[in-house]
Amino acid sequence: MKAEIISVGSSLLTGRAVNENAAFLTRELTALGITIAEAVMIAEEPEKLTETLKRAEKHADLIVITGGLGPDADDSVKTTLSKYLKKPLVLDEDTQNRIITFHKNSDLVMPENNQLQALTLLDSIPLENVTGLALGMFYQSDTHAYLLLPGPTDELIPMFNENTKPVITKHLLKNKKIAKKIIRLFGLTLAQANHDLADLLTTETNPVVQLYPDGLEIEVQITAMHKSEEKAQEAIVKIEKEIVKRTQPFIIGEGDQNLPNIVRELLISKDLKITGAESLTGGAFLSEVSSLFEAGSIFEGGIVTYSETIKNELLGVTKETIRKHGVVSAECAFEMAEKARAKFNADIGVSLTGAAGPSSLEGEIPGTVWVGIATKENETFAKKFHFGYKRNLNREYSVWSAFNMVRQLLVGEAIPDTVKKK
Amino acid sequence: MKAEIISVGSSLLTGRAVNENAAFLTRELTALGITIAEAVMIAEEPEKLTETLKRAEKHADLIVITGGLGPDADDSVKTTLSKYLKKPLVLDEDTQNRIITFHKNSDLVMPENNQLQALTLLDSIPLENVTGLALGMFYQSDTHAYLLLPGPTDELIPMFNENTKPVITKHLLKNKKIAKKIIRLFGLTLAQANHDLADLLTTETNPVVQLYPDGLEIEVQITAMHKSEEKAQEAIVKIEKEIVKRTQPFIIGEGDQNLPNIVRELLISKDLKITGAESLTGGAFLSEVSSLFEAGSIFEGGIVTYSETIKNELLGVTKETIRKHGVVSAECAFEMAEKARAKFNADIGVSLTGAAGPSSLEGEIPGTVWVGIATKENETFAKKFHFGYKRNLNREYSVWSAFNMVRQLLVGEAIPDTVKKK
Repeated sequence: MKAEIISVGSSLLTGRAVNENAAFLTRELTALGITIAEAVMIAEEPEKLTETLKRAEKHADLIVITGGLGPDADDSVKTTLSKYLKKPLVLDEDTQNRIITFHKNSDLVMPENNQLQALTLLDSIPLENVTGLALGMFYQSDTHAYLLLPGPTDELIPMFNENTKPVITKHLLKNKKIAKKIIRLFGLTLAQANHDLADLLTTETNPVVQLYPDGLEIEVQITAMHKSEEKAQEAIVKIEKEIVKRTQPFIIGEGDQNLPNIVRELLISKDLKITGAESLTGGAFLSEVSSLFEAGSIFEGGIVTYSETIKNELLGVTKETIRKHGVVSAECAFEMAEKARAKFNADIGVSLTGAAGPSSLEGEIPGTVWVGIATKENETFAKKFHFGYKRNLNREYSVWSAFNMVRQLLVGEAIPDTVKKK
Repeated sequence: MKAEIISVGSSLLTGRAVNENAAFLTRELTALGITIAEAVMIAEEPEKLTETLKRAEKHADLIVITGGLGPDADDSVKTTLSKYLKKPLVLDEDTQNRIITFHKNSDLVMPENNQLQALTLLDSIPLENVTGLALGMFYQSDTHAYLLLPGPTDELIPMFNENTKPVITKHLLKNKKIAKKIIRLFGLTLAQANHDLADLLTTETNPVVQLYPDGLEIEVQITAMHKSEEKAQEAIVKIEKEIVKRTQPFIIGEGDQNLPNIVRELLISKDLKITGAESLTGGAFLSEVSSLFEAGSIFEGGIVTYSETIKNELLGVTKETIRKHGVVSAECAFEMAEKARAKFNADIGVSLTGAAGPSSLEGEIPGTVWVGIATKENETFAKKFHFGYKRNLNREYSVWSAFNMVRQLLVGEAIPDTVKKK
């Protein structure tokens, strides 16, 4: 099955918005075994849409239109499609009631054309908007299927995940069951993952295996379809084993949760608190910890010790350590982690010290970073990393590497190449 | 003049990359008075490209193709265009030499088809790749202009800014001079800015005025074109006055530098150091300060005091203050800012305390935040904000509002609605 995505909206054609909808939809539809023939961005003009629809029907079975469903005068997607398909628009009363109630309960004035948002093609399947007002829809003619989704990404994604996917599988994919699994990797480049899994990264078979970057992490997404849910699951298990075999040292978890959230769950399950003393990362690790849901249960505070004076006077790293070993050293990382753990009522103290760049520090090239970990029971240890020359990327890698070391510690995984405090 | 953007590459059609190139190019071309008729993403297939070229020529004068210039077998954009236009490809020797030198100096194996990257159409203007290897080009036939740019965004942007814009202005815009100015706003929504400047936001006149979100800031971009540079500058000055009049209370600066960088320059010019004590933002403010270029000259460290215990025991906020006023209070903000300033050898101490959400804190609704500022000479003061219900957005707004208060203090701007310590 082939699909074309038509994104409607002038903000896309003047550079005011990046087309994240197309990126999301191509990813999700590819996972369902649907090939994207073309994706196009056009202005909100009825003639332009009609011309694009005609063209798309030549090479696609499913035509997805995003945007143009709002209450403004130029939101003409529904009326244009209605004329084009010679199908009248009818009012969806549930949506109409939601719109009226929403405006009653807020200070906002109900726009004149608000009904536009509640209209749907006769014989179509209306798709409820979970996070907004404009109704989406799915419609099948004798030859093609049409899917209309709202432009705002925070409305499009929930509408797709909750209400659209079941309709697509029922009407276009013969009611097949979908099984999905995500394996998360950290510590290798996308190019390396691509190389290691090359023969498995297929989008025209079942299961479909895809690789996606998520910040510094990589998601391996496996999607299988089958008449029975059991068989779909079985298909996943088989290919999953092979993927795990090839990527074992880099696996950090499964599913949607990223590394800080994985660490959060481990800390909560073990009833542990964490803190940090940061030099080159200057608060980025603590900021990430404190941004987590209910951070107060795993965290009371931490310290940023950017200068040598502060490391010494406020955290208590001895002048001798700094003089003898420098601040880019295992010894400094040991002391920072231990002192922070003791001061901030924590079970685990993490330290980050090194040369962020662009300049060298103490003769160490930019990107040289020590991450230290101190606990109540075990020996303090640290690990040396060499990242790159880019200051902000080094900071990000440092923070993620620190989270990964905490994860390894908490799940009892061996952490290679560490130095222990004597 | 009308343009069509054709983005070539399978990563765009499987959701592995967001089309940032199209967003950048539509923004830049719109500023030059060129209207984007359509932007399309297609797979790397010669037939598909030929079909798309034919179609684009019907409604566009300038056809921009991004991607497909690399050394891989399926990088067929140049050969396809050559066949389509019946113009042979010739080798650009400078580029060929750069490619050979690059591979000699690295451990990388030179790909078999490396010459592909150095080819250009006969009679075209080659566009040097500042940050990569593949050559771009500009070519004019009797009826159309064609622009080929590389797919990686970090190659496309410098090639466009440094080598492509002058070629476009010379050959397509009659050698006009371009003047550009950016006014930065903070503290109002994009919708409000849109409303306040509605009649000025024109893309089909000269000067062109455009609005772009940049994180929480808004850029008002004015671009004027004229035969003489002086006249172009004059055109900007006129419309700039009107924009300044309407947006005065929200203007934070001019040009590409964002708010933290604006504050950085002010601190450096006055030889001042800054620190922070953070509760709800948990290190996000300090992280932003430490990420700035040569942060060491404006910053020695800071503290994250998430829990009441840490606020009291490590920073020294009195138990009485917390008992009498709570932590979401001006009094707590005063003490946090003052104690941090004194401890961390700084001239300016900033504090952030409040309810990030999703839960309420001390009866204060989520999004209630106090930002405090303490200096050596002046009275300590604080300001109360009400953001929203979204935890991470509240944290971001808090950090940016703190930077803005520091900016206002340093430029001597009145800060409305502050509470002074008695």
